[in-house]
Parts: sequence; structure tokens; C-alpha cells
Amino acid sequence: MARWQPDSRGRLAKAALVLYDDQGFENTTVAEIAASAGVTERTFFRHFPDKREVLFAGGIDLGALAAEGVAAAAPGLSPLDAAMAGLNGLIAVIGERHEFAARRRRIIDTNPELRERDLIKNAEMSATLAGALRDYGLDEETATLAAEAAVGAFRVAWLRWTASKDGRPPLADQVQESLERLRTLTLGGL
Amino acid sequence: MARWQPDSRGRLAKAALVLYDDQGFENTTVAEIAASAGVTERTFFRHFPDKREVLFAGGIDLGALAAEGVAAAAPGLSPLDAAMAGLNGLIAVIGERHEFAARRRRIIDTNPELRERDLIKNAEMSATLAGALRDYGLDEETATLAAEAAVGAFRVAWLRWTASKDGRPPLADQVQESLERLRTLTLGGL
Repeated sequence: MARWQPDSRGRLAKAALVLYDDQGFENTTVAEIAASAGVTERTFFRHFPDKREVLFAGGIDLGALAAEGVAAAAPGLSPLDAAMAGLNGLIAVIGERHEFAARRRRIIDTNPELRERDLIKNAEMSATLAGALRDYGLDEETATLAAEAAVGAFRVAWLRWTASKDGRPPLADQVQESLERLRTLTLGGL
Repeated sequence: MARWQPDSRGRLAKAALVLYDDQGFENTTVAEIAASAGVTERTFFRHFPDKREVLFAGGIDLGALAAEGVAAAAPGLSPLDAAMAGLNGLIAVIGERHEFAARRRRIIDTNPELRERDLIKNAEMSATLAGALRDYGLDEETATLAAEAAVGAFRVAWLRWTASKDGRPPLADQVQESLERLRTLTLGGL
């Protein structure tokens, strides 16, 4: 007798991540993920279009979260600070789950198709952030540049943080360090 | 009697661009491109794996060109200037062909699959540039940040330049303007 099980989506995502990490993304079937989560394949496809999207549709729309952060920012910030106001909420959410983030990155790194998907998601987030910065009052080009610079700084910090064993220093601190570095890019020599 | 025709690759690329622009990327077949260039389909596939790659394999490896520029740069430049030393050669090559660049961009903008491909090529170029900057002597994170910032500035300028009717001001000038903007991102308010 099947009993009612809450949060199929969350359990499917967790089961997929464990299987991808243990036996490889290519070697894992939707049937295995569904079985491991105790649901049918049909339930899997109600939540995700394919096994790739499990890694990119974690239930949180990061672009929308970033846009909300900009909308809620104090007026008159520098372009980069306004962009960071957008990313801070997202950094808080991601920063709490180091083990999940590290595992997810390990999986993505093993597969060229997943790496491409990740780059595209990143570019989409940058575009959404740039749109929010235009609404904040920046001209189009400044908005685009600020979004690209902030997302670049975030990405560099994320790469370092997900590669660390224990998630120390915290993601938020590492992003701050990347931003400091960004500010000095135009200065000095080697 | 077939006569010998030089530069099949170049003629195929040009024919493809005209057809994609006139009748749409989706509506154009490899057979039509080959016929328009006066060669066989087999010749097309000797030069390009599919009709998408015609738009991204223009015979110039932009990443390699950028890496060469960094390798040839004077020592001791600021990270951003070293990155720009990489992009300058590429800006010179692209900047000479406004009509081609504008048409190519129009085609890419019409098709989500092409837009994704374009983002990936961009990210790949940024990664290649970052590698060259590490060889130049920058630490990994500074190299990545400088590459992302420079490619971001280039991209903003390219968007503006390809959208202009006559390619004025020149691409190189527009990149300079983006860089100036980038330097002030962390300053002031609105």
C-alpha cells in the first residue's frame, strides 16, 4: 500500500545528486532516481523535464531572487554595490549549504554538457540582474557591466568556496574578498 | 564542367550568412548553402560539422588570438591592462568588419540555440584569456576576475557597436569607453 510522501521534488533532487555523485551522471537513469526517491518515473517527469535539469532547477529562481534584492536596495548606491545588493540574498541561501553546493559542482565538472548548462544559467542570471539594475536607474551599459562584474566576482568566490573541504571561510566573506580584488584590478603591476 | 573554385570555406560561410539573414536560420538547409556557394553538401561537411558552427568557426580562433596578445604584452601591466592586451588584436580583426558582425549578430539574436552557443563561446574565450593571464604571472583568482571584466567590457561595446547603423564610433573606441565605465563602477551613486 503506497503511503503519501511529502516533497517528492526535494527527495528526487536529493536522490539524483547522490546517484550522480556516486556512479556518474551519464550512468544514472531516471528510473533509478525515481526508485531511490520512492516515486514513479512519471512523478519525476512531473517535476523535471529531464535528468539534467534536476541540477539547475533547485526550486529557487536565483535570477528572480537577485532582482528582488536590487529592487529592495537603498537608492543612490554605486553600480557595483547595487549589483551586490542583488546577489547578497542569493549568497545567503547558497552559503548555508556547502555540502550540497560542493557535491553539485563536482557533478557538473565531470560532464561537458552540464558545464555548458551552468555557463548559460550564469549568463542568464547576469542578464536578469542587469535588467533589475536598469529598473534601479542605471543606464543600460553601466547596468550590464555592473552585473557582469558582480556575477564574475561571485563566481570566482563560489569556485574557491565549493573547492574548500569545510566551506571555510564562508561564501559571503569570499565574495567580499573577490570584490576587493576587483576594485584593484586597474591598479599597479605585478 | 566544374571549374576549380578557391576558398570553398569562405564562400560557404558568406553564403550561409546571407541565407540565414534573408530567410531565417531555421528555414535554411545545408543543401541550399552548398548550392549557393557552388559546392556539394559533402564539401560543406568537410568544413563545418553542422549549419550552426558556420557562425562560430569563422576560421579565426579568438581565444588563441587573445592568448597570443597576452603572451606578447610588456611585463608589469595592471591585471586589466594585461587582459586588454589580449583582446586588442581581436578587437582590431572584428572591428574591420562591421557589416559582417552586424549581420551575424542579427542572426544569432533570432534563435535561442544560437544565443546559447554564443554565450558558451564567450565563456570559453574568457577561460582561455584567464589561462593566458596566469601564464603572464597573475594568481588564478585575479586572472579570472580580470578576464571576466575585460570580456564583459568588450561584450558591452560589441553589443552597442553591432547595433549601430554604420559601425561608428569604431569598436576599439567603444571598448575604451566601456573600460572607463568599468573603472568607475565602484564609485559614486546615481
